[in-house]
Amino acid sequence: MQLNIGAQYIRPNECRFRVWAPQKSSVSLVMVSPVQRSIPMHRDTDDCWELTAENVPAGTRYLYDIDGSVSRPDPASRFQPEGVHGASEVVDPAAFSWDDEGWKGMPIRDFIIYEIHVGTFTADGTFEAIIPHLDYLKDLGITAIELMPVAQFPGRRNWGYDGVYLFAPQNSYGGPAGLKALVNACHMRRVAVILDVVYNHLGPEGNYLGSFGPYFTERYKTPWGDAINFDGPYSDGVRDFFIQNALYWITDYHIDALRLDAVHGIFDFSANPFLRELAAAVHGQADAHERKIHVIAESELNDSGVIRDSDKGGYGLDALWNDDFHHAVHSLISGEKDGYYEDFGRLGHLEKAFREGFTYSGQYSGFRKRRHGNTSADIPVHRFIVFSQNHDQVGNRMHGDRPNRTQSFDKLKLAAAVVILSPYLPLLFMGEEYGETAPFQYFINHQDKDLIEAVRNGRKKEFAAFSGDGDMPDPEAEETFLKSKINMDLRNVGNNRFLFALYKELIILRKELPALSRSGRRDMDVKCFREDVLFIHRRHTSGNVFCLYNFSGSGQRMKVQLPEGDWLMTLDSSDEQWGGTAPPGALRKQLCQSGDMVHIRPHSALIYRQGADKRRDTGE
Amino acid sequence: MQLNIGAQYIRPNECRFRVWAPQKSSVSLVMVSPVQRSIPMHRDTDDCWELTAENVPAGTRYLYDIDGSVSRPDPASRFQPEGVHGASEVVDPAAFSWDDEGWKGMPIRDFIIYEIHVGTFTADGTFEAIIPHLDYLKDLGITAIELMPVAQFPGRRNWGYDGVYLFAPQNSYGGPAGLKALVNACHMRRVAVILDVVYNHLGPEGNYLGSFGPYFTERYKTPWGDAINFDGPYSDGVRDFFIQNALYWITDYHIDALRLDAVHGIFDFSANPFLRELAAAVHGQADAHERKIHVIAESELNDSGVIRDSDKGGYGLDALWNDDFHHAVHSLISGEKDGYYEDFGRLGHLEKAFREGFTYSGQYSGFRKRRHGNTSADIPVHRFIVFSQNHDQVGNRMHGDRPNRTQSFDKLKLAAAVVILSPYLPLLFMGEEYGETAPFQYFINHQDKDLIEAVRNGRKKEFAAFSGDGDMPDPEAEETFLKSKINMDLRNVGNNRFLFALYKELIILRKELPALSRSGRRDMDVKCFREDVLFIHRRHTSGNVFCLYNFSGSGQRMKVQLPEGDWLMTLDSSDEQWGGTAPPGALRKQLCQSGDMVHIRPHSALIYRQGADKRRDTGE
Repeated sequence: MQLNIGAQYIRPNECRFRVWAPQKSSVSLVMVSPVQRSIPMHRDTDDCWELTAENVPAGTRYLYDIDGSVSRPDPASRFQPEGVHGASEVVDPAAFSWDDEGWKGMPIRDFIIYEIHVGTFTADGTFEAIIPHLDYLKDLGITAIELMPVAQFPGRRNWGYDGVYLFAPQNSYGGPAGLKALVNACHMRRVAVILDVVYNHLGPEGNYLGSFGPYFTERYKTPWGDAINFDGPYSDGVRDFFIQNALYWITDYHIDALRLDAVHGIFDFSANPFLRELAAAVHGQADAHERKIHVIAESELNDSGVIRDSDKGGYGLDALWNDDFHHAVHSLISGEKDGYYEDFGRLGHLEKAFREGFTYSGQYSGFRKRRHGNTSADIPVHRFIVFSQNHDQVGNRMHGDRPNRTQSFDKLKLAAAVVILSPYLPLLFMGEEYGETAPFQYFINHQDKDLIEAVRNGRKKEFAAFSGDGDMPDPEAEETFLKSKINMDLRNVGNNRFLFALYKELIILRKELPALSRSGRRDMDVKCFREDVLFIHRRHTSGNVFCLYNFSGSGQRMKVQLPEGDWLMTLDSSDEQWGGTAPPGALRKQLCQSGDMVHIRPHSALIYRQGADKRRDTGE
Repeated sequence: MQLNIGAQYIRPNECRFRVWAPQKSSVSLVMVSPVQRSIPMHRDTDDCWELTAENVPAGTRYLYDIDGSVSRPDPASRFQPEGVHGASEVVDPAAFSWDDEGWKGMPIRDFIIYEIHVGTFTADGTFEAIIPHLDYLKDLGITAIELMPVAQFPGRRNWGYDGVYLFAPQNSYGGPAGLKALVNACHMRRVAVILDVVYNHLGPEGNYLGSFGPYFTERYKTPWGDAINFDGPYSDGVRDFFIQNALYWITDYHIDALRLDAVHGIFDFSANPFLRELAAAVHGQADAHERKIHVIAESELNDSGVIRDSDKGGYGLDALWNDDFHHAVHSLISGEKDGYYEDFGRLGHLEKAFREGFTYSGQYSGFRKRRHGNTSADIPVHRFIVFSQNHDQVGNRMHGDRPNRTQSFDKLKLAAAVVILSPYLPLLFMGEEYGETAPFQYFINHQDKDLIEAVRNGRKKEFAAFSGDGDMPDPEAEETFLKSKINMDLRNVGNNRFLFALYKELIILRKELPALSRSGRRDMDVKCFREDVLFIHRRHTSGNVFCLYNFSGSGQRMKVQLPEGDWLMTLDSSDEQWGGTAPPGALRKQLCQSGDMVHIRPHSALIYRQGADKRRDTGE
C-alpha cells in the first residue's frame, strides 16, 4: 500500500495534497503561509480530493476549506506547529538524512522494553532530550524503547491518549525532526523503537476529522470518546486512514513496532476484521523492506485470537500485553484487593500466568461478573509482554504512586526478578529500574474550560470510593505534570543503586542464559509451594535454570526435586550485593543437588543454574 | 447442560421453580390458580432463586414477585395461556406421549426446506391445523419444515419476531400441546422440523425480562430493540438462558434444527463468542442423545467464520442462509435495482454465488458503502441454504407481494430450477410451489396504542421512497393478516398446476440424481455465456448433469463443451408438460453430444444428464 493522503512531495517543490472527504461537495486547499492562496481540489475515484501544486516549499502552512463553510487542518497533517487548532505544515521527508541503513529491526523475542513518556522522561521533555540518555539505557541492558503516544494532542502536556493528528509528532516534543533524530540515534545504538498508537478513539479537543467524513459511529460506545467507524458505511476510507498511519510510522519514521492501545475499544463486526487487515499490511510492508516489524496490542478481553495466526481464525498480531501477569504479581506483592485485584491475590494466579499466559482463560471473574478470556496455553511465550509497572498501572492510581511508595525494597527486587526472568518479554516503566520516587500522575493541558472541568470531575468520580479525595492531583495543573518528571540521578542514592544494579544483573542473566530467554512452555515446570514460593524450572540444551520466588514475609526452607547434577546459585536478591542482608560470596557460590534443602529469605528471588558458572569463571 | 430454569416437575405433582435474578433482594412465587398462595424463594449459588413446592397440578398459574414491588410472569414460562401480560402456566412434559422413538434426525444435506408461518398457512392458523397438510408437503417432496418463530408474542397475530417468552409456544397457535402434536406428526412422516429462534432482541410489548436481571445492554444498538447482554457483567446468566432455550426445544419438543434469526444483531466481543458456545452445547446435546441436530444462522455479514470449525477460529455452526444467492437470482429475474439489489443484476453475481457461496467476499458493495464479506470458496456446499423467496424477501416489500405478482410464469419456473437444483440446500416459502397469489404482509397485534402508531410510522418511513404510500397495508389491521393467509387449493388453478408439477419434478430430480445433491464445489464447473445463460456442469460417479439457465428474454443457441458420450435431456422448463410452448416428448428425449448446438428458450431451464434415463425407462 502506498501512502497517498496528506501533503506529499512528488518532485522537489511540487506537492500533492490529498484528503478523504466522501460526502462533501467541494474541498479547497487554503494556503496560509508563506503565501496565501486558495485552490479548489478535484475529486478522484476514491472519495478523496486531490490537488498537485508547484512552488510549495517545506514549511508551507495550509488548511482545507470544506463545502465553503469551514476551514480545518489536514486530518493527515504531518506537523501541527501551532497545535491542534492551527494550520498544518508541509514536511519534506528528504530534509532528514538517516544513518540507519544497516538496521533491519530486531526479532521480537529479543525485546527488553523500556516505556518512556517523552514529556516527563527529561527536564526538557522533548524527543531530542532523550538521546543523551540512550547510553544509560544501553548500559541498563534494554533493547527497545517504547514511546507513549506522540500524535499531536491538545496543549503541551498529555499522556498522549488525547491525540488528534495521528500523522503529526507532537509540536512540544520537537515535531517530526525531533522524532526522526531520536529514532535514528536509537538505531545507531541497535535499540529498537516501539510506538504506542491509539486507534480506538481520538481526543476530545481539536478533533476535526468528523468535518471531513464519517470517521466515527454511534453504533458502539467507548469510555473515551466516539467509537471509530471500522465496519459501517464508508469504513473502507476510515480503515485506510489508520492503516496508512501504521505504515507511515514504519516507512517515514523507521519505527520497529507498533503498540496498539486498548484494541477492545476497536469495535468491528465485519467479516474482515480491521486488526487482521492492519497486521497483514504491516507485515507485508516489513517483508517488502526486509525489515522486522511487529504489531503488539493491549486488550482487556484475554482473547488469544488476537495473537493467533489468521489461518487459525486469529488476527495475526505478534504480541499482547499480559495484564493478568501484572495483576497476579502486584496483588501478591501489595496485598491490594481493590478493583481488578479482587480477581487475584493467590500464588496460583501467578503460577497460571507463567504456565499459560492468561490467568483468566474462561473462569468466572468476580470483578467483571462474567466468565473471562479463552485459553492461551498453546501461545508461544514471546507473544506476551509482561511488567510489574507501566504507565497505566502506575498512572491510573489516584496519586499515580509507584510501588516503591508502598512496598518494601525486598518486594521491588522480587518483582523485578519475576518479570525480567520470565519466559515472556519484559517491559520496564521509566525510572522503575532505580526506584524512581516521582509519581506518574494524570495530566492534560486542554484549552476548553468545560472539557477541563469534565476531566477533573471524571477523575474525581473514578476515585470517589477512595479516601483522601481532597488531595487528588489537578489534571490540568502544570505542577501535576512537573511532579511526574523523573530524575535519573536518583539511581545513585541509597538503596536505589542496589536496585539499579540488580535490574542490570537480571537483564544480563536473561541475555546470557538461553534457558531464560529461549525456552518455551514445553521446557518449563511451574509449581507452587503452599501460598509462599513459586518454583520455576526452565530447560534448555545449554543448561537448565530454576528460579524460586518467595512471596511470603518469612524465610522458607524447601526440598527441590531436580535433574541430577550440581546446581550453582547464580542470584539471590537478598544478597548483600543487592543491598540485602545475606552474606555475600558464600551464598552466591553455594551448590545444590536434587533433594537438598534450599533456604530462601523473605520476599526474595533465588536463581540456580546447572553446570559451571562460565561467565563468572572466565569474566571475573 | 441440564435445563434448570422455569417450572419443572421433579416428581409427580412436585414442582421446582427457579428463576435468574442476580441483583434482587427477594423473589417470591405467587400462585394465582387453582389456589392462591405466595411463597418466598431462596437464593442459590448461581444468582438464581429457587423453590420446590408440592401439590402443584399441571395447569397451575403463577407469577414471580420481585423485591415486593412488581409481579411478573416467568421469563422461562412454558406457556402463557392469557398472553404476554398474563400469568405463566406450569406444563407437565409427561402429559404428551411421543411416537417418534425411532426418529434420530436427518443429515443436513438431505434438507429440502419449506418455510411456514403458522398463523397464515391455514385458515385456523394453529400448529395442529398444519398436520392434515403434511401429506401434501411429503407429496411435494420437501424433507423439513421450518416454522417461523413461535415464542409467545403480543396479541394473536405476528410474524413471530416480537416474541417475549422464549420457552412458551404461542397461545393462539395452540401452545405446547399443539406444537408437540405437530412435531410428532412430522417425525411420523420422516419430516424434520426446524425452528426459527430469535436471540438478538426481544419484542417491545410484554418484555419483562429486565425486571429480573441485566438481560439487556446499552453498549450496542440493534434496529429492533435493546441489544442482549452477551458480553457484559452478568452475561453468563444471560447466555445460560438462551442456551437452555436452544436445548429445551431440542429435548422437550424434539426439534431437529434451530434457525438463528439475524445473528449480526448478537453483539459479543468476548473471548468466548456466544454463538460458538451455543453451537457446541447443541452439538453436545445431539451427541448425547445420538440425534442429528443442526444450528443454522441468518447473518448479513457474509462472514464464513460463522460456519467454520471452531479449531479454525470459526463458530462451528452447520449452515448459513445465503442472501447473496437470492439477491443474484431475484435481480436477474425482476430487473429490480432498489436497495440491496443495487449490488446485483449481472449474471456474474449468480455465477460467483454458485462457484463460491458469497457473491460479496470482500468486494466493495455500493449499497453498504464498504467492502463486504470474506471468502466462502472453501466452505462445503451443504453449509448454505438458498431460496428465491422467503418470509423476509416477500414480506419486507411494501405490499408483501410475491414474485408471481410481477414476474412471468416462465421466470418463476426458471427461479425454481435454479434454487432446487443448486448445490446448496433449497428452501421454499409456503405457497411458492404453486404460485400463491396472497401477499405476505407485515402484521402485528399489539395492545399499546403508542407502540402500534410507532410501528405504523416505522413502516411508512421505511417505504417513504416508494410510490403509492397511501395503499400501504396497516400492520395492526386484522385484514392485513387475513389477506396473507395462503390457499393451497389454488394449486389446481390455471398455470399453478404446471408450476406445482414442476416443483415436484425438480425435487424428484434433486433426490434421484446424486450429481445434483451429492457433488461439491470441486465437481462443479460454472460458466456464463454472455449476460444470458448460466451453464453449470456437475460431476458425480453415478452420472454427470449439466444445467443451462437462460435469463434472457430471447431464445439462445449455444455449443456446449462436455465430456464424451450421450447426454439426455431430462427437463426443459418450457416444455408443454410444464405449461410451456415447446413440443413435448420430442424435445424431452433429445440427445446431445459435446459440441452440439443446444437451443434454450427464453427464461427457461434445460437439464441434461449423462447416460440412460433409467427412471423414465423403467418407471413409465
